Amino acid sequence: MEKIVRQGLLYDFYGELLTAHQRRIYEEVVVNDLSLSEIAQDQGITRQGVHDLVRRCDRILEGYEEKLHLVEKFEMTKQLAGQIEQLLEQYRRAGDGALLAQAEEAARRITEI
Amino acid sequence: MEKIVRQGLLYDFYGELLTAHQRRIYEEVVVNDLSLSEIAQDQGITRQGVHDLVRRCDRILEGYEEKLHLVEKFEMTKQLAGQIEQLLEQYRRAGDGALLAQAEEAARRITEI
Repeated sequence: MEKIVRQGLLYDFYGELLTAHQRRIYEEVVVNDLSLSEIAQDQGITRQGVHDLVRRCDRILEGYEEKLHLVEKFEMTKQLAGQIEQLLEQYRRAGDGALLAQAEEAARRITEI
Repeated sequence: MEKIVRQGLLYDFYGELLTAHQRRIYEEVVVNDLSLSEIAQDQGITRQGVHDLVRRCDRILEGYEEKLHLVEKFEMTKQLAGQIEQLLEQYRRAGDGALLAQAEEAARRITEI
């Protein structure tokens, strides 16, 4: 997974556990894709300060994921739900009952995550 | 939802963010269903100490849920997956295409949570 995509996912899940200041800066990097220099200028801090804050937030967010694995669980869930959609669409075209059984199995797996 | 079920759910999701000591005591209450007096005796602390620790853990765990809403999201996901299972089972019996469409819609909603 591309680094910025991973950062965005982790931020979506655990961003509320950062301070308001951390969120403001981290969002400019990860969500709004501004350069460190732009943010440094906007926020009146050094480029190195922005860099350090982003690295610190990365570590905090990865630390939550290491403990809780909720991004991982949600990704699995969404993958399975996507499979169900595809299987049912294929079933509509092909009418093969095995596809239906696979969709049911995927739904059962979601309830067990 | 019954209090102990809610505590168990919150503990499943966020328990790793408590200290080892908090986890040990909280688990005795919420997972193993021991009485405060039993735990107090086992752990060599007062009954009031156990009581206070449990209340503090409740507040910490509820605090995470207030910020992150991940228990809520997972409950919605599992409810939708359960609906998909039921709809496909009904579809197998009744062959009504509307049931299939509802199952697809539920899968689509999971991918959007």
